[in-house]
Amino acid sequence: MLLKNNIKTIKSIINNNRVLTSKEELYCYAQDSTNIKENDILPDCVVFVETIEEVQKILKYANENKIPVISRGAGTNMVAACSCPQGGIVLNFSRMNKILNFNKMNMTMTVQPGVVLNDIKKLASSEGLFYPPDPSNYKVSTIGGSIAQSSGGAKALKYGTTKDYILSLKVVLADGTLVKLGANTIKDAVGYHLNQLIVGSEGTLAVVVEAELKLIPKPEIRNLIVAYFDTMEDAVKASTLILKSKILPSTIDFMDNNSIRTVEEFYPTGLDITKAAMLLIELDGFTSSMAQQVETVIKVLKQINVSSFDLAKDENTIEKIWSSRRASFAATAKLAPDVVSDDIIVPRDKLATLVVGCKKICDENNLKVCIVGHVGDGNIHPQIALNLKDEIQFRNYVNAKSQMYELAINLGGTISAEHGVGKEKISYIESTLDKASINLMKNIKRIFDPNNILNPGKIFK
Amino acid sequence: MLLKNNIKTIKSIINNNRVLTSKEELYCYAQDSTNIKENDILPDCVVFVETIEEVQKILKYANENKIPVISRGAGTNMVAACSCPQGGIVLNFSRMNKILNFNKMNMTMTVQPGVVLNDIKKLASSEGLFYPPDPSNYKVSTIGGSIAQSSGGAKALKYGTTKDYILSLKVVLADGTLVKLGANTIKDAVGYHLNQLIVGSEGTLAVVVEAELKLIPKPEIRNLIVAYFDTMEDAVKASTLILKSKILPSTIDFMDNNSIRTVEEFYPTGLDITKAAMLLIELDGFTSSMAQQVETVIKVLKQINVSSFDLAKDENTIEKIWSSRRASFAATAKLAPDVVSDDIIVPRDKLATLVVGCKKICDENNLKVCIVGHVGDGNIHPQIALNLKDEIQFRNYVNAKSQMYELAINLGGTISAEHGVGKEKISYIESTLDKASINLMKNIKRIFDPNNILNPGKIFK
Repeated sequence: MLLKNNIKTIKSIINNNRVLTSKEELYCYAQDSTNIKENDILPDCVVFVETIEEVQKILKYANENKIPVISRGAGTNMVAACSCPQGGIVLNFSRMNKILNFNKMNMTMTVQPGVVLNDIKKLASSEGLFYPPDPSNYKVSTIGGSIAQSSGGAKALKYGTTKDYILSLKVVLADGTLVKLGANTIKDAVGYHLNQLIVGSEGTLAVVVEAELKLIPKPEIRNLIVAYFDTMEDAVKASTLILKSKILPSTIDFMDNNSIRTVEEFYPTGLDITKAAMLLIELDGFTSSMAQQVETVIKVLKQINVSSFDLAKDENTIEKIWSSRRASFAATAKLAPDVVSDDIIVPRDKLATLVVGCKKICDENNLKVCIVGHVGDGNIHPQIALNLKDEIQFRNYVNAKSQMYELAINLGGTISAEHGVGKEKISYIESTLDKASINLMKNIKRIFDPNNILNPGKIFK
Repeated sequence: MLLKNNIKTIKSIINNNRVLTSKEELYCYAQDSTNIKENDILPDCVVFVETIEEVQKILKYANENKIPVISRGAGTNMVAACSCPQGGIVLNFSRMNKILNFNKMNMTMTVQPGVVLNDIKKLASSEGLFYPPDPSNYKVSTIGGSIAQSSGGAKALKYGTTKDYILSLKVVLADGTLVKLGANTIKDAVGYHLNQLIVGSEGTLAVVVEAELKLIPKPEIRNLIVAYFDTMEDAVKASTLILKSKILPSTIDFMDNNSIRTVEEFYPTGLDITKAAMLLIELDGFTSSMAQQVETVIKVLKQINVSSFDLAKDENTIEKIWSSRRASFAATAKLAPDVVSDDIIVPRDKLATLVVGCKKICDENNLKVCIVGHVGDGNIHPQIALNLKDEIQFRNYVNAKSQMYELAINLGGTISAEHGVGKEKISYIESTLDKASINLMKNIKRIFDPNNILNPGKIFK
């Protein structure tokens, strides 16, 4: 809990009207998009920073006074990575939202952390370039949050995740020092890859204040194949055979029967609710290659037990189908007062076992689950609809969650693919990583942040 | 300098006949492919490890007795990263060269560090899969060395570098602890990316004993366009316009006039020695897309001042042209008793300035330089032919080197793209990286290796 005096100093560093302290305002910044809201604690103040120098000054002061600092973009995080379990200062980056430079010749963009992903994508696209990472909230989420949480998205199969598009980072260390990590070049072999260490560190090592992004030429065209299957096994098999036939789709996403039914109930677009699984196979590339890609995929689908399939070629139809897939979270949310979306991943050949297992676990715990995910990556998002205030349901949920994590780990996978650990998965990290690995991480944390002011209570206890 | 007693203990850990100690044998392992051989110091022994347990035992013993340990693959390194400035134990991985698992369905391969890249490429290719990183020595160099030095290669433009194909690593820490870093899944957002921290750490943080590699579907076809230009500026401009026309070639490599002449003198294949620069533009992908890609590139070449160009479609011709490019180092080596190949990189729009500047610097220092490189990445390898034993030439070389590094840094680039720092570039790291960044690296080094036994005297002083 900060003293009046602390707040006064902070207001002397930052213009008065950019520091929020009223309880009503603080409440809006106590949480992110995570639905589990146990023991909510309010931050002591929210600071809307505008310059790197302000971030440096705030951190220097916070470090000297051991005040927690929680960096925040759009707050779309799903693992309570933006929560404030120890109060402190929320650094709000919504005003540091400028694209500082767009070098078309180098295919690079220099951005502030508060820039919304969609703005990066749109500007790149206007010059025939492409920033691929596409977490489903990309229309509101920020690049700062993407870097913090190592965001992926539907296109990770072909194009990788946020880490693959970060050249260099400017970060402010806990003591206020500004430092550049990495180089603004396509390759870099000088010293340790500290920029990659920052990606996915969830704001616990340093505060990102600028990023140099790598862009690539934009694919000329995309087509989308929607395929239905009678079993999850067939859907996974299709995914593998497509890859084996040398086609690398930009996305192989899927929805299970519950997801299809739920989406169709609330946002009807004509999905086939009788099928066990639906795959969305998006192909992109040169116009001249599209027929070959489509034919190869359809040949594979016909070879195995596909139930039916459809091909979408025009952008409007493709976007409409994607909105169905993206609506699955909102639709599931209509089934109960609350919805929690998880994020687990296994090697692709174990995915059918994982999906079937998760469904069984949820059934046994009397929980309604809609499973969607990126089948090409082996990554699923079980979305559980429940009433978190119902003690039995909550206990069942906690049970199911740890059983699903155990299953993922036993299948050679891990407990987060693209959401992060945050506060939400902190109890499971010890059963996920080697002890020696956690010790190394904790020691690295101590180097970067000896007073433990940067997003404390996240990733590790 | 190890005592007899130390050697005796090492021989009790490792089978006697796998420990070399004679001066003649040690001399073979005192160096790598770096030509600068100042103050060569011999290792005290060379140990041919066969198991993870042996690596653990050796490291535990070395750590307790503060004995330097230098891990070594094929020794193709160009920055003296495998040299032994403080003597010690060379861990030779040539017997840990097994491909432990090849999971076609997951498109992953589990390999020991001593596996030669070409073996990985060949096995992947036999199942229609692809391991893209291709340092020019890939027929002899090992995956362990690739991981240590963050190797790139000609295909980095489209396919990235070693770091993009590492899922998880098993490493032995300085004290002998075995730890797994990262996950065997396509995405991973659990804790810090320690696997990425190890890539490029040049054996100074931990000893890699196993790696899980990501593979991708193999492109169906490739074509190679050879284009000649009257100025370096035109060659760079061509590269940029190709990318701007939404073509992402797998490679845009180049040779300057000196390189063309030198290769043609010693390995004649009919290159046009009158031209200022030659580009090798390799296109790959679906068969159906090839005509479109080739036509687009040729249209761009005709728009600008291309002097002449040729298209190679069959594998034999393509390979023959690539051997000319790869022969440039061997050819340059014939011009003088020694040859040193450097490695600098700048943002692409500064590349012409860098090439012209490096040529001027070498001219002013009376040094013969052949410049080749990966123009699509902004990365060049100035290859300087000289007599290192000639004091004046050596002094000129040292002068030229630091001037070229200064130029690269002033142009917004850095002093190594894919070779690393090693012992060779250690004096330049302070003018390349922020002081705070170096401090962080040194502190991380201390966490991993408190007794500084792992490849001491590399990266930092």
